[in-house]
Amino acid sequence: MTDDSPRADLYVALMHFPVLNKEGDIVTSSVTTLDVHDLSRICRTYAVKTFYIVTPLEAQHQLVDRMVRHWKTGFGSTYNPTRKEALTGTVVKKNLDEVMKEIEQGSGRLPKTLIPDTRSFPQSVSYEEGRQLLKEGEGPFIMLLGTGWGLERNTVERADYILAPIDGINGYNHLRVRAAAAVILDRLLSKGS
Amino acid sequence: MTDDSPRADLYVALMHFPVLNKEGDIVTSSVTTLDVHDLSRICRTYAVKTFYIVTPLEAQHQLVDRMVRHWKTGFGSTYNPTRKEALTGTVVKKNLDEVMKEIEQGSGRLPKTLIPDTRSFPQSVSYEEGRQLLKEGEGPFIMLLGTGWGLERNTVERADYILAPIDGINGYNHLRVRAAAAVILDRLLSKGS
Repeated sequence: MTDDSPRADLYVALMHFPVLNKEGDIVTSSVTTLDVHDLSRICRTYAVKTFYIVTPLEAQHQLVDRMVRHWKTGFGSTYNPTRKEALTGTVVKKNLDEVMKEIEQGSGRLPKTLIPDTRSFPQSVSYEEGRQLLKEGEGPFIMLLGTGWGLERNTVERADYILAPIDGINGYNHLRVRAAAAVILDRLLSKGS
Repeated sequence: MTDDSPRADLYVALMHFPVLNKEGDIVTSSVTTLDVHDLSRICRTYAVKTFYIVTPLEAQHQLVDRMVRHWKTGFGSTYNPTRKEALTGTVVKKNLDEVMKEIEQGSGRLPKTLIPDTRSFPQSVSYEEGRQLLKEGEGPFIMLLGTGWGLERNTVERADYILAPIDGINGYNHLRVRAAAAVILDRLLSKGS
């Protein structure tokens, strides 16, 4: 199945710092390989340009690097080719600045940030507006996804655009980041409508 | 956040038999607690009536029962209340017949089956048609989700309705069941449009 949908100028970063823990302290969360696999597949499905895993911890860089290498070129690459393909665009970085600089070097412009959050902010946009934004091509854009109990508030407040939370039915709003990201990317980038 | 969206007459079943393995043999797959948690949250978000975990293996029933009990009434219920709430509608059954009978006893009618599949069938419907179907209220409906390498073909062919696969961009179509289910339920049941 191929199609001629324009590929959005969108990057995604899974942030492990600065995020909140259950008590509201700013912490560094752990990389979970499951999130890396699931989100790599999701990003690949919606043709996200690069999926960045952001963590300052050196040991976690090695973990992700080893994992990506195993599936991209090691035994895993023949055992599970769809996983290999998913990880093609997955990269680990130390902090958001490094990510922003890499994108700026590639495209000549700093990306605008897009963050999903459960609260309302002056720069909040609907999914329809977000979809329009990505279509109009004033990119690059980068969507920042928080792990743990969510991104630290200053990071959120500095975002260029904030996306509404996934509103289901009955007000329950506690999807895991991997499920939320799938729904968000589908709303922003799916081919229909 | 509350709203007055009608709650669809929809059930979801995560099937661990009869499913295919990598070689195409019909097997019983293992329940993974992660899928139970993620899908329980997803089903709760979209107000699915009951989320059934279907496996013929007695030991896996005990595993799921113990897990659900821990989070619903044990230590977990106070440690993580959103997980508790997610699991409220999660039930384990031996086979699809048991599920169908339980729904029929509750609603007076056998549910119509809805299965996402990557292939085209005479009874294939678009997401727009599926959305309309659920809105018109000729339920109950049950969506069957395959684990492993997907539901065994006869089960799929007997479905009342078959949903198209999640078509991303560039033809990559290999989402994990938890991500696919989130996108499917969002397309069928989200409040927008």
